[in-house]
Amino acid sequence: MDENSFINIAKKAKETSKRTAVLSSDIKNKALVSMAEALNLHKSEIFEANKIDLEEAALMVQKGEMTQALYNRLKLDENKMRDMVQGIVDISNLEDPIGKILLKRELDEGLILKKISCPIGVLGIIFEARPDVISQISALALKSSNVVILKGGKEAINTNKAIMDVIQKALSSVDGLPEGIITQVFTRDDVAQMLKCDKYIDLIIPRGGNSLVKFIKENTKIPVLGHADGICHLFADESADFNKALNIIIDAKTQYPSACNSVETLLIHKNFPKSHELLAGLKAAGIELVSNPESWHKEYSDKIMSYKFVESVEEAVNHINTYSSGHTDGIITENHANAAYFLSAVDSAGVYHNVSTRFADGFRYGFGAEVGISTNKTHARGPVGLEGLTIYKYTLEGNGNIVKDYAEGKKTFAHKDLL
Amino acid sequence: MDENSFINIAKKAKETSKRTAVLSSDIKNKALVSMAEALNLHKSEIFEANKIDLEEAALMVQKGEMTQALYNRLKLDENKMRDMVQGIVDISNLEDPIGKILLKRELDEGLILKKISCPIGVLGIIFEARPDVISQISALALKSSNVVILKGGKEAINTNKAIMDVIQKALSSVDGLPEGIITQVFTRDDVAQMLKCDKYIDLIIPRGGNSLVKFIKENTKIPVLGHADGICHLFADESADFNKALNIIIDAKTQYPSACNSVETLLIHKNFPKSHELLAGLKAAGIELVSNPESWHKEYSDKIMSYKFVESVEEAVNHINTYSSGHTDGIITENHANAAYFLSAVDSAGVYHNVSTRFADGFRYGFGAEVGISTNKTHARGPVGLEGLTIYKYTLEGNGNIVKDYAEGKKTFAHKDLL
Repeated sequence: MDENSFINIAKKAKETSKRTAVLSSDIKNKALVSMAEALNLHKSEIFEANKIDLEEAALMVQKGEMTQALYNRLKLDENKMRDMVQGIVDISNLEDPIGKILLKRELDEGLILKKISCPIGVLGIIFEARPDVISQISALALKSSNVVILKGGKEAINTNKAIMDVIQKALSSVDGLPEGIITQVFTRDDVAQMLKCDKYIDLIIPRGGNSLVKFIKENTKIPVLGHADGICHLFADESADFNKALNIIIDAKTQYPSACNSVETLLIHKNFPKSHELLAGLKAAGIELVSNPESWHKEYSDKIMSYKFVESVEEAVNHINTYSSGHTDGIITENHANAAYFLSAVDSAGVYHNVSTRFADGFRYGFGAEVGISTNKTHARGPVGLEGLTIYKYTLEGNGNIVKDYAEGKKTFAHKDLL
Repeated sequence: MDENSFINIAKKAKETSKRTAVLSSDIKNKALVSMAEALNLHKSEIFEANKIDLEEAALMVQKGEMTQALYNRLKLDENKMRDMVQGIVDISNLEDPIGKILLKRELDEGLILKKISCPIGVLGIIFEARPDVISQISALALKSSNVVILKGGKEAINTNKAIMDVIQKALSSVDGLPEGIITQVFTRDDVAQMLKCDKYIDLIIPRGGNSLVKFIKENTKIPVLGHADGICHLFADESADFNKALNIIIDAKTQYPSACNSVETLLIHKNFPKSHELLAGLKAAGIELVSNPESWHKEYSDKIMSYKFVESVEEAVNHINTYSSGHTDGIITENHANAAYFLSAVDSAGVYHNVSTRFADGFRYGFGAEVGISTNKTHARGPVGLEGLTIYKYTLEGNGNIVKDYAEGKKTFAHKDLL
């Protein structure tokens, strides 16, 4: 078998994951600090590599083959580098998510069940444009004792290679750290093979645009953590406070229109007294307003917003549960009963009352760092921090205990929680 | 669209799931008690229906088209019915898994984030032979506020229909309970459509043989909770106590050989002093012993066991991490360092020390009831109780808070845990 074939890389990653599972917090944190220091020390080499990618990208922007937004995300500067380095240091200071005892139960005298957090195994990360994702995801994977195979976009290939070189050298200098915790692959064929590799890869995390995430979700049996659409809603109830409503909607739409947690559809209670002033205020803030049934499915990622009048909070909830992507949806109301009903009935990862949808973010939630935002209904939902990269196992320790004794009634279970 | 088409049933189930999500514990527990009482009251009708299935099944056993074991699982009697009824009552007495506040954090003054447990949505259950699964899974789904679509095996069709009739009538008598929480489908085509229905079905739980589970895992993009193989290992270390080893291995192999948590492969340290006596003792207990490389992949589900001598605990761990199905694996040793290494390094849902693998079971773990045992590396692993049927959402409540204030540094996050 070709040493560098994807299947061989994945197989090795799986083997390595058995060794990373038992790493001490101390070694992991040393490795993180070493990564951070090395990136800071070798930043000029990384900027040089980034320059090459940026020159190519500038030509693509000129030819209309790349958006200016993508170009901006590709560009590394002192500020971004400082954030990258600080982000790794922050992760090294977080509590170790592995080896936590989540349950400790005496099943019978001397028969102790424990539920212990452990790493998932091998993560496949597929991302576009933003080279800072490499260091962030590598740090999160290392902290959670997972092994990671990264595939970045070709527009950032020189930057990604330079960052990976620095990280690899830093990690190889750490005693007791197995080789191969982080591997990078480069081709489209590698992605195709990754998606088929359910024997060795336990979780895929795509970071990028809608079409990338959709393609991945539709082409693999491996669990995928992430979200494709971000169709978020705000509902201005009959009793909404006018100023709060205007401020929240403007923030949710304009503070960063291309973010997944920006609002796309505004629902307005038909009896909200100042609806004309509200719509006028939104237009004055530079928001283009659209209202037709086709627009309920639209993610504009721009200063454009759909709006619709509804008869009741129930109709608003039904509209949201039908058209929302399950990311983040909010109500603006002074009616506490309506707020409580909305929070309970809307089936989305984030359900908000009197705040902007833009708060849906791991850093803002205080998770320290995030791998992404999930609209899944299993495993992890909403902004996902280190906890989403863990699972658990059960250990059972005894002294010769056999099931026959319990099946025949000679012994009975105590089920006494010790934690 | 045909009212009874699968897609329509699934769509209705999804709609119903929005209403069950907000049910009170009181209504759910009333419905469970009503189910239990009705099953007890109408058991003679269910036994009549079961008789029809059993007559057909007896002919199949005669013709060699059904195993005696399957026939036994199909057969309902007073004991099984009592257990079914008691199982539902037990579930009604468990704590409500929905609406639990898992995290409460003040992001800033008056800006409160909560992480609240909620139902997954719509569960698709595909099961074989055992008609008692209907009542157990229906009760677990109801308790966890999920909606469930059940597809049983055709060998139990009359029994399943009779049980479902009784359950449906019981549920329809409960005030405030939405219709359609439990639906049954019957055809092979329904299964094919269920597997494609990722728009409306959130989780599939197969309960049945290896080939059923494998088929389902290979033919759907919907998350599947369960396990196909159950290739469990025991390792008798150099310092294993002879009597403990013999008792544990005999229990793990013979107490219920067709169970998924029965041991299939025995690894023996080459320096274990009484290996000949151990193998002789196992043969004397009626266990047939096999040793060749093809057998490392075998799940016998019978009193047959593979065995292999290994050089070290490390080799045992490597063998297990290569061939185990990740269900349950154990070490028998008096050496605490080896036990600790084994518990930490073996990557299985259950990792045991000096006990029988047969303990891997939701009831024995004290979960009250189980939906099944999962070998997945995401969401839920090992015996899965009510918690595995839940996910969470984040609510954020404020008073007009916008992200712009934090992005511009006017306000800063406090991230103060209130729980």
